[in-house]
Amino acid sequence: MRLEPLQDFLRLCSEIARSELPASQLLEKAIEACRSAGLSEDFARGFVGLVLAERERASGEKEGSGLGLREFASKAREMQESGIKVYRLELGEPDFSAPPSVIEAAYEAMKAGYSKYGPAAGIRELREAIASRLSERFGADLKAENIVVTAGGTFATYAAINVLTKPGDEVAVIEPAWPLYAHQARYLGRRVLTIRTSFEEDWDPVDKLQEKITKFTKLIIINYPNNPTGKILDRKSFEKLLEVAEDAGAWVVSDEVYIDFHYGGEPASALEFPSSKTLTLNSFSKTWGMTGWRIGYIVADPETAGKVAAAQNTAMTCIPEFVQRAALAALEDVESARRNVELIGRRLKILYEELSRSKLIDVKPPQGAMYIFPKIKVEGFDSWKFVRRLLEEKHVAVAPGASFGAYDNYLRISAVLDDEDLREACRRIRKGVEEYGSS
Amino acid sequence: MRLEPLQDFLRLCSEIARSELPASQLLEKAIEACRSAGLSEDFARGFVGLVLAERERASGEKEGSGLGLREFASKAREMQESGIKVYRLELGEPDFSAPPSVIEAAYEAMKAGYSKYGPAAGIRELREAIASRLSERFGADLKAENIVVTAGGTFATYAAINVLTKPGDEVAVIEPAWPLYAHQARYLGRRVLTIRTSFEEDWDPVDKLQEKITKFTKLIIINYPNNPTGKILDRKSFEKLLEVAEDAGAWVVSDEVYIDFHYGGEPASALEFPSSKTLTLNSFSKTWGMTGWRIGYIVADPETAGKVAAAQNTAMTCIPEFVQRAALAALEDVESARRNVELIGRRLKILYEELSRSKLIDVKPPQGAMYIFPKIKVEGFDSWKFVRRLLEEKHVAVAPGASFGAYDNYLRISAVLDDEDLREACRRIRKGVEEYGSS
Repeated sequence: MRLEPLQDFLRLCSEIARSELPASQLLEKAIEACRSAGLSEDFARGFVGLVLAERERASGEKEGSGLGLREFASKAREMQESGIKVYRLELGEPDFSAPPSVIEAAYEAMKAGYSKYGPAAGIRELREAIASRLSERFGADLKAENIVVTAGGTFATYAAINVLTKPGDEVAVIEPAWPLYAHQARYLGRRVLTIRTSFEEDWDPVDKLQEKITKFTKLIIINYPNNPTGKILDRKSFEKLLEVAEDAGAWVVSDEVYIDFHYGGEPASALEFPSSKTLTLNSFSKTWGMTGWRIGYIVADPETAGKVAAAQNTAMTCIPEFVQRAALAALEDVESARRNVELIGRRLKILYEELSRSKLIDVKPPQGAMYIFPKIKVEGFDSWKFVRRLLEEKHVAVAPGASFGAYDNYLRISAVLDDEDLREACRRIRKGVEEYGSS
Repeated sequence: MRLEPLQDFLRLCSEIARSELPASQLLEKAIEACRSAGLSEDFARGFVGLVLAERERASGEKEGSGLGLREFASKAREMQESGIKVYRLELGEPDFSAPPSVIEAAYEAMKAGYSKYGPAAGIRELREAIASRLSERFGADLKAENIVVTAGGTFATYAAINVLTKPGDEVAVIEPAWPLYAHQARYLGRRVLTIRTSFEEDWDPVDKLQEKITKFTKLIIINYPNNPTGKILDRKSFEKLLEVAEDAGAWVVSDEVYIDFHYGGEPASALEFPSSKTLTLNSFSKTWGMTGWRIGYIVADPETAGKVAAAQNTAMTCIPEFVQRAALAALEDVESARRNVELIGRRLKILYEELSRSKLIDVKPPQGAMYIFPKIKVEGFDSWKFVRRLLEEKHVAVAPGASFGAYDNYLRISAVLDDEDLREACRRIRKGVEEYGSS
């Protein structure tokens, strides 16, 4: 390390830190300065990350309230457990459970002793079965080496952020979004670039992404069919989005856990667009009602897949083999999957019809996923205040739009109760909006 | 941020980085400089971490070969699968599986629908059962709030390092040690301080720790009964070790996954020594043969426990509830636990007797755990070379001492085969040592 260029570099950083220039410009100059000082780009990124963390520490910036949803759900559960009938539509969890075929497969596997340490990437049979099914469905050419079985979609995104970016890197999240993406990125010391999409523009992300992406954006997380909007990206937009990412040199992580849940055209998968920098993920949680089983997978080039497996190995050694054998049985149980998807589709139609009846609510017919994300046309609507009062007074739990970004005029309602309960819940929501939507 | 003190700070760091002073001294000066520059200690630590990483990058330093053991085990498995009888004693995995009581409990729980998203810290019933059992056994006063159920001991140490230290901090590992400790620490961007103990000094860690610990050591990972040596720390030494840590202001993570496996006095637990800075962990893997179930737990003050739960929430949401209910059944199945421990004890005695018969092997009677760690009294013994040849020629797989630190004169042999197979394996090991121990 030579000393003088480092001093110049530091002067630059200090000045910029004080002038509150955006992080991306700071980083650009830092990389330049490091290069001339004979330091690596990693050093520059790490240093800028430190300066930004220090700036945040000084200004007392905090993470958003997205994760408050869990506490809210606990409150709803407590009310329910105290004997009150609560219409619980606040969580992204189906009300159906794993089919008997899956439970029996797990039991047989346990008895057969499939409960030892195994490969961190998952057992070969399951990886091959996933690869061959995806290849057939999306016209891809996948092998077991492209697949890593993960502890649910959650570990898939966690590991993806961890292996595809470095601390200080920028991770783009398209909002409204599942709050865990941004939380994971920040937890891992990455910076979050928020791309806001809007109801009025049909939640289209492409132009917004193109406008805001920087050359420091290393990864873009997308999720179609979308939680919470139900939006499906048409093939052309999907392709365009991947092009925007490619031009910026950014990875795309495509969270496709709702890809089976569609009520119009078949959604596009990132797997249909060959590219060297996409990582696709899916889970058994939604399609087969296996949320608590904690099993999903990523699809990527073999090198990236190896890094994800190494991350899983480091964090938890492997995931239970009997759970993996249960997932194999789930893949075979096409009928249960079809029934589950159909059920959610019918309920979403009910939600759409019921909510459309209010003049204070604007709602689009859901294209996919398990949710409806109505806009409440009341000025100054406070989604957290509203959902708390709705739970307290009407015993209906829904998720506030604020949990998914700056969407305080929205609610997310999950299609996870039977028809009659859904209708009753919607009646109460409509009433709530009329009575105290503006208070 | 003021500029001038920062420049002084940087000059200092650059000079020290070039002069190759130890990291701890560099950090000390950096903290001092940051303080006068109005920067936080975190900034100083992060900066020094960057400088050290840059130094390592330049010098091409690499992680040790500890993790090669997994590949070696794969090779042994392949041989076995090709039809060859292989005596596999290389892994830390019992040959017994979960008892029927545990499998049935998991099955019943699945059928009853205990397979939904649950609390990241684990279900209350299990946390309470663990707390009450530990309180009774070790005279502690533990509540559910002190316990977090984790995805095995692996996630317990991963999360402990993650929440108790920051990138750039120093984590002390007492060698010989399970290679994953150091790997996890480095993976998370921490520096590893190696404390070497020796066969000749009865693997005693206390003096060595006291000698090498610095005020930048933020965490010490201990593991008694020890993998690989079988060493049990007597109460007095345990207390002294905790005192050394306390004086240095360091956390102690006590990995007690082998605490049920003892063949003399009952081993001490960190839980017997009240202190505000210890985190104890255990697992269901060894005692009940549940390695692949991926379930363990940490014990800590409620604030630390909350952070571990948050880490688990971020990485994987929760662990399967039916697995937790199976663990509840395991706690009840005291008889299976007793039988398993007895079995391993009997085998360790056989290993000790058989290995003692060679003049080229020096061996201590194991006090606990599932391993024996003989010293091969052959000059220039190369443990990796030896175990590869032993597998190839004698079809016996054991772990090389080099996997556990700079212990190239040692082998780790797991007590995971039946008596006769163990005797035969020992005969072949003795023969191997005689034939090509020195080649």
